[in-house]
Amino acid sequence: MRFFEQSFNKKTTSSFRHTRHMDKELLKKQAGYLAASFVENGMTVGLGTGSTAGYFIEKLSERIKLEDLHIKAVASSAQSLELAKQGGIPTVDINTLSSIDLTVDGADEIDAKKRMIKGGGGALLREKIVAGMSKEMVVIVDETKVVPLLGHRKVPVEVVCFAHKVTLRRIQKLGFSASFRKKEKEYYLTDNGNYIIDVRFSSPLENPEKEHSLIKEIPGVVETGFFFHLAGRIVIAFSDGQVVIKQ
Amino acid sequence: MRFFEQSFNKKTTSSFRHTRHMDKELLKKQAGYLAASFVENGMTVGLGTGSTAGYFIEKLSERIKLEDLHIKAVASSAQSLELAKQGGIPTVDINTLSSIDLTVDGADEIDAKKRMIKGGGGALLREKIVAGMSKEMVVIVDETKVVPLLGHRKVPVEVVCFAHKVTLRRIQKLGFSASFRKKEKEYYLTDNGNYIIDVRFSSPLENPEKEHSLIKEIPGVVETGFFFHLAGRIVIAFSDGQVVIKQ
Repeated sequence: MRFFEQSFNKKTTSSFRHTRHMDKELLKKQAGYLAASFVENGMTVGLGTGSTAGYFIEKLSERIKLEDLHIKAVASSAQSLELAKQGGIPTVDINTLSSIDLTVDGADEIDAKKRMIKGGGGALLREKIVAGMSKEMVVIVDETKVVPLLGHRKVPVEVVCFAHKVTLRRIQKLGFSASFRKKEKEYYLTDNGNYIIDVRFSSPLENPEKEHSLIKEIPGVVETGFFFHLAGRIVIAFSDGQVVIKQ
Repeated sequence: MRFFEQSFNKKTTSSFRHTRHMDKELLKKQAGYLAASFVENGMTVGLGTGSTAGYFIEKLSERIKLEDLHIKAVASSAQSLELAKQGGIPTVDINTLSSIDLTVDGADEIDAKKRMIKGGGGALLREKIVAGMSKEMVVIVDETKVVPLLGHRKVPVEVVCFAHKVTLRRIQKLGFSASFRKKEKEYYLTDNGNYIIDVRFSSPLENPEKEHSLIKEIPGVVETGFFFHLAGRIVIAFSDGQVVIKQ
């Protein structure tokens, strides 16, 4: 708890990094591995997407091999489904489930009210569906993702292809900087066959619910990367080597 | 105006139908044809979807052939695009436009505050995008579509295919009756490659903005068939033969 609050002080956090620097990948691994210990026998587990969630899937796979752990998993992206298959984690069709016991996923930014920006990897919609049907979503981050206010990083917005440039202009008209995500000069396509518009804000967001609603109400917008009222426990890996679980 | 209010009285409307019955298709044609007279030279025109909008497209096509009328059109569905092509109406890519001068479209229901249920034909999302970028949306209806309160007819909701049954259950959990639209035993697919869930309400909606928000906030919901703050003039064809334009 102390470390969570401490991390809001950028200078302190920054000095940590300088004095006792730990590789960022190692921090992600620490957070992901610790969260794997939350999984219990018989659970239905939601698998997040991204590098930190990848470490969680790795450790979960290891537990299944070494322990007598029986679970069913649901992936939030084609990428995570592939990792699950490679790791021998049994997966089920999400449509057969009415709820998920535990989902573990990363975040691009998380503030003191557990509001998040997610979907930097482009899987925001499926991640939000999986999180929304979970009894608990455990968020795994390194300390650089913990912020006083959201809005420093870009927010991905999934939009339908029809009239996509009209949708872009409507987002820009709200006063936000916005552009299509590209992949090798082509529009990036989500697992759902939609495009991603990355939205940037000129200042931190005191009330990101407002920005979410403004963007979400534009016809053509499928979902935003703002996640509210979804995070349960947060596992934060600090560069001094400590890993803190915030309830 | 008098007739618009009169139509809220179901008994009066009903007796009209019995005494001086006009074929419903003829009413739709009257509304659609009248709206075609609103189109002026040089305009960019949004073409709605459905049977009433079909009559508007028919008359517009006729005007282009008989008069020296030069317009550009944008279709709100593959179906309307086909009608435009058959009728020799020049169409443009919606992405090249920043606004549309005039859109003409039908409605499944419209109340006294010009709130609507639309998309019975399954084109709600594209219709809403087109309406949303229009300087004016003219709504064309026969009197049976004018209601005191929305909610008698089903509201179509476009949802992504991923976890579609989860999304259905979340809508049902709100207390609404909901089911997937089918076409020859298969799920109906929208022009955007999504499914349609038809939602029914047990009583008229005093404040349909609430139902819209509740449904729209479910991740996986792309758009609802509730249209607010979009209708301009309304052309209403009554069964006694009168056609009324409500400002």
